Amino acid sequence: MIGTGMIGRDHIRRVTDVVTGAQVVAVTDIDVERAKEIASTIDARVLPTGHDVINDPLVDAVVVTSWGPTHAEYVLAAIAAGKPVFCEKPLATAAEDGLRIVEAEQAFGRRLVQVGFMRRYDAGYRAMKRVIDSGEIGAPLLMHCVHRNQSVPQTYHSDMAVQDTAVHEIDIIRWLLDDDIVSTQVITPRRTANRFGHLQDPQVMLFETSGGVRIDLEVFVNCQYGYDIQCETVGETGTVRLPDPADVWLRSAGQLRTGVLQDWQQRFAAAFDREFTEWVASIADGRLCGPSAWDGYATALISDATTEARHTGRVVTLARPDRPAFYAT
Amino acid sequence: MIGTGMIGRDHIRRVTDVVTGAQVVAVTDIDVERAKEIASTIDARVLPTGHDVINDPLVDAVVVTSWGPTHAEYVLAAIAAGKPVFCEKPLATAAEDGLRIVEAEQAFGRRLVQVGFMRRYDAGYRAMKRVIDSGEIGAPLLMHCVHRNQSVPQTYHSDMAVQDTAVHEIDIIRWLLDDDIVSTQVITPRRTANRFGHLQDPQVMLFETSGGVRIDLEVFVNCQYGYDIQCETVGETGTVRLPDPADVWLRSAGQLRTGVLQDWQQRFAAAFDREFTEWVASIADGRLCGPSAWDGYATALISDATTEARHTGRVVTLARPDRPAFYAT
Amino acid sequence: MIGTGMIGRDHIRRVTDVVTGAQVVAVTDIDVERAKEIASTIDARVLPTGHDVINDPLVDAVVVTSWGPTHAEYVLAAIAAGKPVFCEKPLATAAEDGLRIVEAEQAFGRRLVQVGFMRRYDAGYRAMKRVIDSGEIGAPLLMHCVHRNQSVPQTYHSDMAVQDTAVHEIDIIRWLLDDDIVSTQVITPRRTANRFGHLQDPQVMLFETSGGVRIDLEVFVNCQYGYDIQCETVGETGTVRLPDPADVWLRSAGQLRTGVLQDWQQRFAAAFDREFTEWVASIADGRLCGPSAWDGYATALISDATTEARHTGRVVTLARPDRPAFYAT
Amino acid sequence: MIGTGMIGRDHIRRVTDVVTGAQVVAVTDIDVERAKEIASTIDARVLPTGHDVINDPLVDAVVVTSWGPTHAEYVLAAIAAGKPVFCEKPLATAAEDGLRIVEAEQAFGRRLVQVGFMRRYDAGYRAMKRVIDSGEIGAPLLMHCVHRNQSVPQTYHSDMAVQDTAVHEIDIIRWLLDDDIVSTQVITPRRTANRFGHLQDPQVMLFETSGGVRIDLEVFVNCQYGYDIQCETVGETGTVRLPDPADVWLRSAGQLRTGVLQDWQQRFAAAFDREFTEWVASIADGRLCGPSAWDGYATALISDATTEARHTGRVVTLARPDRPAFYAT
Repeated sequence: MIGTGMIGRDHIRRVTDVVTGAQVVAVTDIDVERAKEIASTIDARVLPTGHDVINDPLVDAVVVTSWGPTHAEYVLAAIAAGKPVFCEKPLATAAEDGLRIVEAEQAFGRRLVQVGFMRRYDAGYRAMKRVIDSGEIGAPLLMHCVHRNQSVPQTYHSDMAVQDTAVHEIDIIRWLLDDDIVSTQVITPRRTANRFGHLQDPQVMLFETSGGVRIDLEVFVNCQYGYDIQCETVGETGTVRLPDPADVWLRSAGQLRTGVLQDWQQRFAAAFDREFTEWVASIADGRLCGPSAWDGYATALISDATTEARHTGRVVTLARPDRPAFYAT
Repeated sequence: MIGTGMIGRDHIRRVTDVVTGAQVVAVTDIDVERAKEIASTIDARVLPTGHDVINDPLVDAVVVTSWGPTHAEYVLAAIAAGKPVFCEKPLATAAEDGLRIVEAEQAFGRRLVQVGFMRRYDAGYRAMKRVIDSGEIGAPLLMHCVHRNQSVPQTYHSDMAVQDTAVHEIDIIRWLLDDDIVSTQVITPRRTANRFGHLQDPQVMLFETSGGVRIDLEVFVNCQYGYDIQCETVGETGTVRLPDPADVWLRSAGQLRTGVLQDWQQRFAAAFDREFTEWVASIADGRLCGPSAWDGYATALISDATTEARHTGRVVTLARPDRPAFYAT
Repeated sequence: MIGTGMIGRDHIRRVTDVVTGAQVVAVTDIDVERAKEIASTIDARVLPTGHDVINDPLVDAVVVTSWGPTHAEYVLAAIAAGKPVFCEKPLATAAEDGLRIVEAEQAFGRRLVQVGFMRRYDAGYRAMKRVIDSGEIGAPLLMHCVHRNQSVPQTYHSDMAVQDTAVHEIDIIRWLLDDDIVSTQVITPRRTANRFGHLQDPQVMLFETSGGVRIDLEVFVNCQYGYDIQCETVGETGTVRLPDPADVWLRSAGQLRTGVLQDWQQRFAAAFDREFTEWVASIADGRLCGPSAWDGYATALISDATTEARHTGRVVTLARPDRPAFYAT
Repeated sequence: MIGTGMIGRDHIRRVTDVVTGAQVVAVTDIDVERAKEIASTIDARVLPTGHDVINDPLVDAVVVTSWGPTHAEYVLAAIAAGKPVFCEKPLATAAEDGLRIVEAEQAFGRRLVQVGFMRRYDAGYRAMKRVIDSGEIGAPLLMHCVHRNQSVPQTYHSDMAVQDTAVHEIDIIRWLLDDDIVSTQVITPRRTANRFGHLQDPQVMLFETSGGVRIDLEVFVNCQYGYDIQCETVGETGTVRLPDPADVWLRSAGQLRTGVLQDWQQRFAAAFDREFTEWVASIADGRLCGPSAWDGYATALISDATTEARHTGRVVTLARPDRPAFYAT
């Protein structure tokens, strides 16, 4: 485990308590005390650097949850060591680093990299993909997506609405439609009063795929009422929509009501568990099949274009990247 | 219009403002001032008694909304006068009076009487009946029914849970299943604290039809949160359930919620309108087809048996009344 | 009644059978036989032209449901005659005609014109407006709207997606937000295969109000599965969404399901009835309060700009029209 | 693992693949070949009898999933060996055996027994219990419960509707209300045609708790359409209801629909996983807290009374069993 911040500690707990067939044997963090504290609870060693973790002979696979700008370096080192590596998004903060990873992995000759796009493991999105792939709603034409957070801290700035938030939507759109995004635009409504002054919130992002599907995505990270992910795909003969998470229904005081989740940990807890369970199983099988380095790279290209679209106020088009056969699904 | 109490005035407004093809020309009430007040707003005459209304040559059809114990007398008089009569429930407070009405109407030779079971005009119950009749859920085996009021006044006593409240459920069960109830039982849970001391609230009534369908009915008239009518019919291959009334959905403060109606006027407003619209049209056609005197009589027999069942704590069985061919559906 | 086509006949039936306090006394149509046929069923006279209807001394108020290009002429004539006039949309097929109507009505000095935007009478939209106006979801920031038809005939062409279909959405957006649209853009996804060749279907329209609210509207008129109107307004602290129309719920064959309506007559039947009921009552009161000539004119300006936006592929901005005090809400 | 039938194999998979901190080291089954087959896949030993498993020094805790009549013997043996034992329901097929277990465990002085009432680990029931305990709906007065299976095999007979099926409902009712059932009655509707001839299906069971709460429970094991568990608790000020399991919503062919689960494995998969995860954790903690031997015994008393109620057609009352302080919650 490289990185023991919030998401890192959550993954350590997951590997230790939830996933069978795996064990955390070594951790590192730039904050050594933090690393020691968590390591002591799980009987793991603390190593000085990420490279020490990667090259430790007891380590069969690497999880990278350190600071984003360090991801590419560790992923490349893991490839060099021939070890499977799970990297939280972003795979790389610069697209060219993503490309280097893609090239390194192909040169190695076998998939080693998985990127932490956990939504692909959510039961709702999986059911939606089955419906789309079955042809039950005909060919997709449109998607309506909503990503809402209850609130974000002051450190969250306008570019993060794409880089940190919409990136999950971009991946899931690509995966659901089995297509790439080739045009992007950002619309900026009146800002909510419930935000820090520097932040454009909400934002509406408009995407177009190479096949002509149009997607609108609302990103609203201070919606106050809860954490809410919505997605509807409109096909030629029908539509399919994510359900709201199931909770008990109350009737009281003139209302029929149910709870809305408050954070992504609740919303995607089962997806994270399944993501790691399947990742560990796929390593044992020798057949990685989750979100690939290519997905990380392609998503970064679209994120960068979307950031440019917001800064310029223009529609930004992308050449559809030419996916190597190595990454064929 | 015989009777200008709350429901009477509501029907006067309905005939005047909602229904086309009818006009209130004469009203009466034991409270003459009340009758005068309402009559003055609609340009109708006030007559001394219900019999004067019935026999007035300008009156083509009679609506009886007076005090329950007077209903049978006026309905019989209307039959004697050969005029269509709409009678709010109960048709008669004693079953033998109901039988006299049924016999008088048959002697007259043509249907004149309609009883105010407005639920048959509700869009949800009608859709449920279509589903049942279509065979889409197979033969019915069970029904689960719920009748909840926000609260009732002190004058409401335990027998009224059957005579005033469950009577609507009994009619709709008979109509939906096209069958009669032949056994009845009342179960008395712990009483809610939110009631006047004399009242058994809630009550659970258990019915069995001649065809072996079993029905459980919750009557809870001080449920606090609203007016709520639920009904599910369980058949051999599926179930059909009333929808909750449609209202906008809000997401705020950690909840997803919609409104619950607060009274029967809101819940059945459209049903009442349709009831009168169809009744007036059926008079013009000369073919009454709504809930009949027979339905009023049969329902009274079941209500009486259910009252006895609560008083004795026993299962009470009824012989299935032998419906005259005159009342064949 | 000027015009006895499908919508005209439906309004004739409505005035005759549903609305109290009004009666159809004269009709006209360019197809005289059609006019005679309907007139004979309701005991109304057939007059040669719309102007004869307007000027008939027995006619207190005029309903215009003739061919769109003739609307402005009849509305202006009704104003000249000082008679209330209900005009189906469009108020005018050219914006300058709309302006002439607005000016003529102001010159007359009292409101005479109502435009047939029936959605304002739908219970769901009314509940949504109450929620927005109450401040319960904070200031609106975004709206997500969907308009889907099961299918359209070959005569339906791409401009009609705005002029005939989206015009209702444009009106309801203006009304819900009490604001005007000042920018418009049209996005064209891949076309469904289930359409006649000339038609761009679906279309996504993007609007911005003078207050900075952004709206996305999907218009998809060959969606195959039904007639489906959706609307969600996103505010600073919560959201409000139209309910799906209530229908019974079935559980059978591995599914939980309810019906989707198939046409606008079903979806807005109650709204049409309420529209006419309130219009007739407002004439009796002498205080017209429904959608005004100004609404018809402003909506036409936005429709025209949206048509231009689709033709040019560009964002089209409008100056916010300066609403005369005469039309203050 | 004592017993390698369907549920036994499922628990072996669960301990092996899902739960961390536990490992299957020894299995037994009367069908030795079946035991060998499963043991070979998980590197466990096959022992001749359940007693060999219980007394094996490598075995820290025992899971009993053998044939029901053998449960009590193995549970008593585990207590004698001082080892935690998880026993699938029933704890004992005769109530007096349940009592012997309860006495033996008390004599041992510490809880060792947990019974497999997995519903207590279902997220929906847990949320319902939180709502009830919070006082949010006031004191409970009524419960409406439904248990439906798609179909059952010919070996399923009428008593199993209580002993195998309703037993889970009985436990969850006791747990939700923190009360015991003191009266029971069975109502037998017309039988569905979709069953083997010997079976009474559906059945309606009526329970009363010592606190006066009344419960109706539909058990319908050949409902054809799916596996469906419903539960609504009605309190003095409101109600709480289980949600339907979340699945994507489709709009197509005139319907809005979602899937209904087909079997209990899908419905309670997460509950089973949590049950074992918490059980294993509680052994490590030395503090068993799941459904106890007392719960198994009390539930058996109610099941037996309910069976008698169906056979006799009468209401059967039970003395409320006097729960030892040892089993205080």
